[in-house]
Amino acid sequence: MSSNVETVRVELGDRSYDILIGEGLLDRAGAEIAARLPGIRAAVVTDETVAGLHLPKLQASLRAAGIDHATVVLPPGETTKSYSHLQTVAEAVIEARLERGDAVIALGGGVVGDLAGFAAGIVRRGMRFVQVPTTLLAQVDSSVGGKTGINSPQGKNLVGVFHQPALVLADTGVLDTLVDREFRAGYAEVAKYGLIDRPDFFEWLEANRTHVFAGGPARIRAIAESCRAKAAVVAADEREEAGARALLNLGHTFGHALEKAVRYDPARLVHGEGVSIGMALAHRFSVREGLCSGQDAGRAEAHLKAAGLPTRISEIPGPQPTVPDLMAAIGQDKKVSRGRLTFILTHGIGQSFVARDVERQAVERFLADELAEG
Amino acid sequence: MSSNVETVRVELGDRSYDILIGEGLLDRAGAEIAARLPGIRAAVVTDETVAGLHLPKLQASLRAAGIDHATVVLPPGETTKSYSHLQTVAEAVIEARLERGDAVIALGGGVVGDLAGFAAGIVRRGMRFVQVPTTLLAQVDSSVGGKTGINSPQGKNLVGVFHQPALVLADTGVLDTLVDREFRAGYAEVAKYGLIDRPDFFEWLEANRTHVFAGGPARIRAIAESCRAKAAVVAADEREEAGARALLNLGHTFGHALEKAVRYDPARLVHGEGVSIGMALAHRFSVREGLCSGQDAGRAEAHLKAAGLPTRISEIPGPQPTVPDLMAAIGQDKKVSRGRLTFILTHGIGQSFVARDVERQAVERFLADELAEG
Ligand SMILES: NC(=O)c1ccc[n+]([C@@H]2O[C@H](COP(=O)([O-])OP(=O)(O)OC[C@H]3O[C@@H](n4cnc5c(N)ncnc54)[C@H](O)[C@@H]3O)[C@@H](O)[C@H]2O)c1
Ligand SMILES: NC(=O)c1ccc[n+]([C@@H]2O[C@H](COP(=O)([O-])OP(=O)(O)OC[C@H]3O[C@@H](n4cnc5c(N)ncnc54)[C@H](O)[C@@H]3O)[C@@H](O)[C@H]2O)c1
Ligand SMILES: [Zn+2]
Ligand SMILES: [Zn+2]
Repeated sequence: MSSNVETVRVELGDRSYDILIGEGLLDRAGAEIAARLPGIRAAVVTDETVAGLHLPKLQASLRAAGIDHATVVLPPGETTKSYSHLQTVAEAVIEARLERGDAVIALGGGVVGDLAGFAAGIVRRGMRFVQVPTTLLAQVDSSVGGKTGINSPQGKNLVGVFHQPALVLADTGVLDTLVDREFRAGYAEVAKYGLIDRPDFFEWLEANRTHVFAGGPARIRAIAESCRAKAAVVAADEREEAGARALLNLGHTFGHALEKAVRYDPARLVHGEGVSIGMALAHRFSVREGLCSGQDAGRAEAHLKAAGLPTRISEIPGPQPTVPDLMAAIGQDKKVSRGRLTFILTHGIGQSFVARDVERQAVERFLADELAEG
Repeated sequence: MSSNVETVRVELGDRSYDILIGEGLLDRAGAEIAARLPGIRAAVVTDETVAGLHLPKLQASLRAAGIDHATVVLPPGETTKSYSHLQTVAEAVIEARLERGDAVIALGGGVVGDLAGFAAGIVRRGMRFVQVPTTLLAQVDSSVGGKTGINSPQGKNLVGVFHQPALVLADTGVLDTLVDREFRAGYAEVAKYGLIDRPDFFEWLEANRTHVFAGGPARIRAIAESCRAKAAVVAADEREEAGARALLNLGHTFGHALEKAVRYDPARLVHGEGVSIGMALAHRFSVREGLCSGQDAGRAEAHLKAAGLPTRISEIPGPQPTVPDLMAAIGQDKKVSRGRLTFILTHGIGQSFVARDVERQAVERFLADELAEG
């Protein structure tokens, strides 16, 4: 069937698992799951949009493999990552009489994956979990690494567990139904892996971006390379304790502040767009601090722009965020440890590093200038 | 201060921790916590009853040690182990701006410990957790081993995580305020450790029971020995995967069925009483199956009776449960794996074992005879 399936192994001792990446994997999902987890029953969790587009194929494939399953369809969108939907999913899984060895299968983007993974992590104190990510962001980021969770009224992703999947099935074909803006947003995370510490991958993306957007082997390769990058970091720091995971936050401290400033209004800014602007800001701030050449920062920015992503705060529609708003959000960011400001800065393309004790005022002046320039 | 503090170490690699057992530990709680977790802030979770009796002492001790803390007081009782109280605790912890390295401190019985531990396990995907158990059951059972959770409308303890505490402080003096019935109920779990695989401990309990009830060194020793017993099992099978934890369910399959039959009405039956009757049933069923001598079963029963615990179903006040009720509950018990009946049976005092594939009809006939005898 798919001649072109890449496998990325996430090495985590007895919690190791495979990520399969290829076109048409949805048709093989049942067989791949049954081969690895024989005899299981399952609960498929998805959202209404994805259910309309891709659920029948997954269900047919599960049925063909003899995997008895219940299905839970949730409303789409970030607000679904709530206590009440967590309870809905957990109770549906219990209602289906699934046992610990059975599986919760997440079919959807990061919202569905984070929520269903959390439910799988807490029902019977931890059931098996399979990710079938259907957005580019979910395929290259949220489905890999075991972070699951919901949002608190007080902040995003503040409640959850680390719960590794037993298998990730990334069907690159399902991304064809994704709206362009969501694909672009996910692409910001792909570019991020190059900018963190894979300069060759970044160069390859510069040459192959249009093919990645078009689909086919280049898309599979970009997603596999992204998963390899994330898997390496996760293997080194499974529970975000050693600090190695911090590099994955390139562009995210600024990005989260921007998302917060627009009150997570997706009409104005989606996560990947915030990350894109955030990465451009991290590069420009690094130039200003004398850490990175202007040429490298320009190259990073040019690539994001070419992909149709914003790189300046002024590109966000609506009233501009203010410096105090952004600084307050940066101070509240959960990655801030005991008051010191930690940023991911860079020495150039693919040369990012964790900068602790970044001076608050330097960031403040930088943002003021960025906003003044427009 | 307390000349007589026993320390039991729970060996779990980098998640190892100490259980301190002694009189007056509440006064030293702040110092013990500060010594092990320097610089932390905390959220104390407790219930109204325990708050009235013991919270001021803990708070004073935390203040004296310079541990800044918020306090959450919940209604007492099993219904507090709910999704909504979980959210209340999690949000209070976030509201207090605690970070991952800070601690949730549970001051109370198993209800508070299970709920607060679950909240500690999910806020920021896992914070530090300290148990200050105040019931005998919590000191010898629920505070050791890292099982946390809440009840689902569909069954008890169906939702939760494994989250090990960083420290357990069991002040044996606080048990003096416990109502007699709760102390006796906790004692059923103490006797259980002897009956599982510690015949010498059981013999010691037969000789020292009244001292354990009275307080002082015998109580400390009984609790420490119980913690050692549970710690050994937990170290061998942290996440209840290897089956070694199963022995801890001696008396519990029957006990849970009885609790379910009376709809968890504590006026009729509390957990420890159910376990006591359950252990007596497990011994008598073992006799009937030719596994255990009538003499040993009689010895087990006599000890439980002497401690003021029930050993017959007919001792439960109100309408007697029926065999079909009990069999349905046994079939639903979460320890039942894919339809086979698993019971903990025994070859004699301290010689329990896991019996898989127990014949359903044999259990049914046994219960019918037990109910007929009255
Ligand atoms: N766990 C992690 O490590 C991690 C990492 C990054 C982001 N996240 C989380 O991921 C979430 C964002 O994920 P997302 O961007 O995938 O959002 P999402 O799940 O909301 O998906 C975006 C939209 O696309 C729709 N959609 C999904 N697949 C589709 C398809 N194939 N065709 C058409 N429409 C489709 C969805 O219905 C939704 O409306 C956030 O909640 C974020 O916190 C988690
Ligand atoms: N996590 C585990 O491994 C584990 C093991 C066994 C039981 N449990 C759970 O433990 C719970 C039962 O625990 P419990 O029996 O401690 O119940 P509990 O926490 O409800 O306490 C019983 C009663 O005693 C009161 N109390 C507590 N300490 C007191 C004191 N020192 N003086 C006076 N009153 C006091 C409480 O307010 C409550 O009303 C159940 O929910 C059960 O599922 C968990
Ligand atoms: Zn991101
Ligand atoms: Zn018990």
